[in-house]
Amino acid sequence: MESTAWNGFVGGKWQEEVNLRDFIQKNYTLYEGDDSFLADATQDTKDLWQMVLDLSKKEREAGGVLDMDTKVVSTLTSHGPGYLDKSKEKIVGVQTDAPFKRGMNVYGGIRMAIKACEDNGYKVDPEVVEFFTTHRKTHNAGVFDVYDEEIRKCRTNHIITGLPDAYGRGRIIGDYRRVALYGVDFLIEDKKKQKNSYGKVYTDDVIRAREELSEQIRALGELKQMAASYGIDISKPATNVQEAIQAVYFGYLGAVKEQNGAAMSLGRTSTFLDCYAERDLANGTFTEEQIQEFVDHFIMKLRIVKFARTPEYNQLFSGDPVWVTESLGGVGIDGRPLVTKMSFRYLHTLDNLGPAPEPNLTVLWSTRLPINWKQYCAKMSIKSSSIQYENDDMMRVVHGDDYAIACCVSSMRVGKEMQFFGARANLAKCLLYAINGGVDECTGVQVGPKYRPITSEYLDYDEVLEKYDDMMEWLAGVYVSALNIIHYMHDKYAYERIQMALHDRDVKRYFATGIAGLSVVADSLSAIKYAKVKPIRNEQGVVVSYETEGDFPKYGNNDDRVDKIAANIVSTFMNKIRKHHVYRNGFPTMSVLTITSNVTYGKNTGDTPCGRKHGQPLAPGANPLHGRDKSGALASLSSVAKLPFMDSQDGISNTFSIIPGALGKEDQVFAGDIEIDLDK
Amino acid sequence: MESTAWNGFVGGKWQEEVNLRDFIQKNYTLYEGDDSFLADATQDTKDLWQMVLDLSKKEREAGGVLDMDTKVVSTLTSHGPGYLDKSKEKIVGVQTDAPFKRGMNVYGGIRMAIKACEDNGYKVDPEVVEFFTTHRKTHNAGVFDVYDEEIRKCRTNHIITGLPDAYGRGRIIGDYRRVALYGVDFLIEDKKKQKNSYGKVYTDDVIRAREELSEQIRALGELKQMAASYGIDISKPATNVQEAIQAVYFGYLGAVKEQNGAAMSLGRTSTFLDCYAERDLANGTFTEEQIQEFVDHFIMKLRIVKFARTPEYNQLFSGDPVWVTESLGGVGIDGRPLVTKMSFRYLHTLDNLGPAPEPNLTVLWSTRLPINWKQYCAKMSIKSSSIQYENDDMMRVVHGDDYAIACCVSSMRVGKEMQFFGARANLAKCLLYAINGGVDECTGVQVGPKYRPITSEYLDYDEVLEKYDDMMEWLAGVYVSALNIIHYMHDKYAYERIQMALHDRDVKRYFATGIAGLSVVADSLSAIKYAKVKPIRNEQGVVVSYETEGDFPKYGNNDDRVDKIAANIVSTFMNKIRKHHVYRNGFPTMSVLTITSNVTYGKNTGDTPCGRKHGQPLAPGANPLHGRDKSGALASLSSVAKLPFMDSQDGISNTFSIIPGALGKEDQVFAGDIEIDLDK
Repeated sequence: MESTAWNGFVGGKWQEEVNLRDFIQKNYTLYEGDDSFLADATQDTKDLWQMVLDLSKKEREAGGVLDMDTKVVSTLTSHGPGYLDKSKEKIVGVQTDAPFKRGMNVYGGIRMAIKACEDNGYKVDPEVVEFFTTHRKTHNAGVFDVYDEEIRKCRTNHIITGLPDAYGRGRIIGDYRRVALYGVDFLIEDKKKQKNSYGKVYTDDVIRAREELSEQIRALGELKQMAASYGIDISKPATNVQEAIQAVYFGYLGAVKEQNGAAMSLGRTSTFLDCYAERDLANGTFTEEQIQEFVDHFIMKLRIVKFARTPEYNQLFSGDPVWVTESLGGVGIDGRPLVTKMSFRYLHTLDNLGPAPEPNLTVLWSTRLPINWKQYCAKMSIKSSSIQYENDDMMRVVHGDDYAIACCVSSMRVGKEMQFFGARANLAKCLLYAINGGVDECTGVQVGPKYRPITSEYLDYDEVLEKYDDMMEWLAGVYVSALNIIHYMHDKYAYERIQMALHDRDVKRYFATGIAGLSVVADSLSAIKYAKVKPIRNEQGVVVSYETEGDFPKYGNNDDRVDKIAANIVSTFMNKIRKHHVYRNGFPTMSVLTITSNVTYGKNTGDTPCGRKHGQPLAPGANPLHGRDKSGALASLSSVAKLPFMDSQDGISNTFSIIPGALGKEDQVFAGDIEIDLDK
Repeated sequence: MESTAWNGFVGGKWQEEVNLRDFIQKNYTLYEGDDSFLADATQDTKDLWQMVLDLSKKEREAGGVLDMDTKVVSTLTSHGPGYLDKSKEKIVGVQTDAPFKRGMNVYGGIRMAIKACEDNGYKVDPEVVEFFTTHRKTHNAGVFDVYDEEIRKCRTNHIITGLPDAYGRGRIIGDYRRVALYGVDFLIEDKKKQKNSYGKVYTDDVIRAREELSEQIRALGELKQMAASYGIDISKPATNVQEAIQAVYFGYLGAVKEQNGAAMSLGRTSTFLDCYAERDLANGTFTEEQIQEFVDHFIMKLRIVKFARTPEYNQLFSGDPVWVTESLGGVGIDGRPLVTKMSFRYLHTLDNLGPAPEPNLTVLWSTRLPINWKQYCAKMSIKSSSIQYENDDMMRVVHGDDYAIACCVSSMRVGKEMQFFGARANLAKCLLYAINGGVDECTGVQVGPKYRPITSEYLDYDEVLEKYDDMMEWLAGVYVSALNIIHYMHDKYAYERIQMALHDRDVKRYFATGIAGLSVVADSLSAIKYAKVKPIRNEQGVVVSYETEGDFPKYGNNDDRVDKIAANIVSTFMNKIRKHHVYRNGFPTMSVLTITSNVTYGKNTGDTPCGRKHGQPLAPGANPLHGRDKSGALASLSSVAKLPFMDSQDGISNTFSIIPGALGKEDQVFAGDIEIDLDK
């Protein structure tokens, strides 16, 4: 393929095959300067953003939702175009035919869609309900047809939580850049070739693959239609940075029209788009101000992506997050930082539009990043409290230099890897099950296997550890079973057509699991080992509390005695996950990650031997339990740093607040209240 | 389980488990008497049948369809009750809310549903079309997403024909007797136990099985609802023969509401129902006249089962057949014939209601049947020309004594085996492809592999045979691929919920293939071997005709020289089928079967070396080509009888007309024009 749209770019393999990395590596311009080149918001930008603020206010006043579709099921082509103000928007497109009007996604589950409407005072059209109940099964209905009694019990008793079995699983990043670089027609031809690249033995796998490719091809066609409804042709490669941003955004917009995944992340688009910006600046096609305006309008659109959710969902996630994560910066495997002017422009939207949680701007941090970039990041962090940092030096080893973050910590090569999202198993609760022979300490229900409970007056470390190992063995099995069912049904009833259309033919599928309550487990086992823990039983003989005599090492103080327990739990559970059959040859991984849902988990976890009481939150992610890390920030971080990344490859999060005083100087760059996700 | 409904029956294993054969063997009463006990039609029966005749007349006058549903997609519970005349009907239930109003089945394919409506002057509701195009994929859409170029070419060039890729595949017989004997509640409990009988390793197979069982359980619940809409409770076992017939019919009615399979057969119900009749007669619950009335009304209902079809479909099948096949008689493996009074009553409907093609009353013939039954069959054959005969002595070896026929010749154990229906490969056309190096003799398209064509002036037997073997090798592969895709998609998008609910958990699935044109192939190869055949080529070098000098042995004259060629082709092609991966661990079989579609096949098959001209029909099934069996009936049948049953286990059909003179006596019992399907 040759295209005049590519004039001025350095050619290479990317012209023969879909290969974004090759294009970027050959064409990006490293920027080591400072932020002085950045342009302010234009009047159009200010006007549009004021409209967004006004609509946001109206939405809050309306109780959280301004408008919802209750009749038209959201697809790529379900709605006509929608605008804030057509005359001012340089980048166009909203999920339905009007901004702030939420689309109706039902493939994940009709019951959830009904509830999301009802809880917000709307009612789904009865014909739609009838149809999606009688004739068109949803992911949710499929899953519950297969769940067994044990899985259901684990779910209702909250030892396995947050399973994506009633809505879109998310955590899949389409390579939206492909739409810009190649145009949709080329991508369709490529997919057709892929479809013809299978042999003639029609096993179930081949049939599924070919059907999915047909769906992808159809979705790409519909994406063109969607763009055409805005008067824009994306069949051919983008010819300038405005078209490129628009094409990338349309790709993403297609995804959020079709799917309401728990995390709908954007990828790693800034350095790619900078290649167009540099060319346009050199050619005089656009000014810096114009380019910043395109970026501002793009980011504005990302900020108003919205789904219809239930109050329970919003409670679990402390809001209404979409996780439009964009990964910025990082360093290439050749040592050149991937920082460009466009990286600055993205962060600059926090000035031009003001701070916001979405898109989730994530800096891939490396010691080798340019100092000006580091300083600009720090400055914007202080101003906005809106930046996430992750460890590029660690992740680059696994994923190379064209990966991105889905949600908060899940790393994957863009367009080459995806994730089967798996939420979390509550290992703190699992420890209590080990002590109580599988009986739930809150509900009294026999949830786990009927192993012998602990009957002694004081807990014995070796006995508890042995029983805990058995109980984790059981839990890992039930957990993987639930996820196998979920992902089978998601592929069957809510397949991500357009997102997967922007992937290679052969995709590595991470089969992601997760754990909650790590620090509680570590501290509890430490208490049993180093102090004296007496279980308190209720009338039914179920241990519901503990009396702990004496002190014990606590996770978060750089004390190997307990930190090694934590690290060992991570490896042990991961290895138990690895024992099982997983759907579609998934690659099992695990995360130690919660940002907010640990609060909910705590409500459903009884007293723990470490002294934490029923209802008190678990620590988020890999954090030490609140207040127990008494040896300073470095010691706290060191404990977290001992967790083995290769056994928690889906990411380790550490929510970490620093007040200026903690760093010794009031004018230190790290001031304010910052939340950092550390991917060790 | 204990039930007062079972009082008077001999107990056994059937009370502990779903085991119809055990119940029948322990409870049926062999009847060796004659037909003098039979009762005439009641006035109600006559009145109802007159209504059917009137409606049939109106239907014909309306051009073939009296009314069609265009809005409500047919399911078990989609329609309220419908009657001919409620006050007179002893057995109730029609497919929609009125007799002769055809339901709309779309799961098999929305395009076919649209066409079936349009061709009959109706229009499917646009919302239904939109929904089944955008949100709810159909079997047909799934199949065509996966078909490759080669399969499509084989299909459009008619070398593979009649594939069930646009409508229900049919050929599955629910064990409808279970509804009567156990009641639906027991069956639901049994299915729940089955659902819990899998281990904890959730492979794709286990997930699919559990989801299907959930669908089956739901379908059984809906079957109860459907019956309740007629004011009838089928949750508990039937207490008398009227309830038993009604329950069996409701089971079947559920199937024909949900599915529009190419053959929707009934099974083997008469001897089962006779157990109830005998008990009721002994108890004085009902008179013979009443029981015959129940049977007459049941059969009447089976006669008016109708689907919405396209003219092309009706042309292929020479009408609008449903293949409501009921298998009568046969002999048990203990030697006792399974003939009962109920067997007589079923055939007696041909007197009480007059002759009719449906239900397809099929006598399982054995030399050991009671003479009175044989004579009655013969008598009714003469009167009605409506009876089919199949060889029980042959099939009993494979299937035991509780099998039935689906469609015309496909035998399967009731409730324990089912079939993936596979239509036919045209082996006559395949021979022409062998000669032309894969180029279609009618269209000139390169359909098969580009093997070297035959270029010699005269055809050489060994060369043709070698090329034919290669071409069959290719054809078998493409054919099995198409069927793998079809059955994967049928299970995915048009699963037979209620029919499979009336099966055991672990079902043997016959992967049925079929061949057409056997006698043409045999005669053509014989001509090449024993006469001199000169191919005639057109301007493109494609052989389009043949000049044959000299005589040659023809299949159908008990001449081993050609009969062995036929038998060898059957075994060869079956063995090629057996080489391939088949969907869902199917058990590959083959049929040599066509009743009417051989006419269409002939239209699409060019001149053949045997002297048959382009457009002339192929012979049906395993028949000799029309007029070539010149050595008498016995010789003709003997040729057919040499075909190896174990390589054509799905059945061999031989359409055979006997005129009185052929049998030497004008008053011979076999008089009239009878069509026999011989299952050798």
